[in-house]
Amino acid sequence: MGSDSTDATADELSARECWERLRAEPYGRLAVIGPDGPVIYPINAVVDHATIVFRTTEGSKVDAIRADPRVAFEVDGWSPEDGTAWSVGVTGSAHEIVQMIEGASAMELDVTPWQAGPKPIFIRVTPESVTGQSFRRIDRRDAAGDTT
Amino acid sequence: MGSDSTDATADELSARECWERLRAEPYGRLAVIGPDGPVIYPINAVVDHATIVFRTTEGSKVDAIRADPRVAFEVDGWSPEDGTAWSVGVTGSAHEIVQMIEGASAMELDVTPWQAGPKPIFIRVTPESVTGQSFRRIDRRDAAGDTT
Repeated sequence: MGSDSTDATADELSARECWERLRAEPYGRLAVIGPDGPVIYPINAVVDHATIVFRTTEGSKVDAIRADPRVAFEVDGWSPEDGTAWSVGVTGSAHEIVQMIEGASAMELDVTPWQAGPKPIFIRVTPESVTGQSFRRIDRRDAAGDTT
Repeated sequence: MGSDSTDATADELSARECWERLRAEPYGRLAVIGPDGPVIYPINAVVDHATIVFRTTEGSKVDAIRADPRVAFEVDGWSPEDGTAWSVGVTGSAHEIVQMIEGASAMELDVTPWQAGPKPIFIRVTPESVTGQSFRRIDRRDAAGDTT
């Protein structure tokens, strides 16, 4: 995830915390660079040896990765009770898992798509950066007051 | 949001449904093309006359938009009760709201950042495509069985 240094109320998550949250939250979002710019896809992913692995099928997502392997992945969440939100972002490069051994290993991972249907392609994202923040999410009413 | 045609269990949302969900869900994610590839940021946004408006401050997000205005925005959600998930994705171009009148109008919108702190810059995303899907999210146990 990107962060702006002026976000005074945000706390940076440690690398350990980021990976814990990546492991705990399978439902994330993948950004690729498509022919017309960035596109975001909801995906289910798992952590495998400090990489992110997800299962997909032929389509625009895989086409984009083949054309430009640079991707971002993000998971987030929040607690309505205390208003604390968090987001962990990964940037890195994606490649198809094509080797037999790597593919067989990936098949044993608990990787699921958000949707049912044939999903024969496994993609591995090798992170270049992993960052995260937790922050107090502003109530819309408070913030509206803030600007008027 | 991107979609793959082989996602047999997904239902396309109508344009009206997409906009309803964009209006109802302020917490979304913005993808920009940064110097090293895509980056995803959590943002709060509002719909304003068929555009998406959010408030931010100087930082990597705005730097990226100034360098390349192409962005994606996504909101999603799911119901644990029936296992139905949905995602709405916007792709388009972003620009800073700099005109006095446009800025004043934007100040009256109920736009809040995820985090407190000074957020003096308003960005408007003009959509080129708005698509959405609802689908049955697969239980990880079922899907794990599916692959073994």
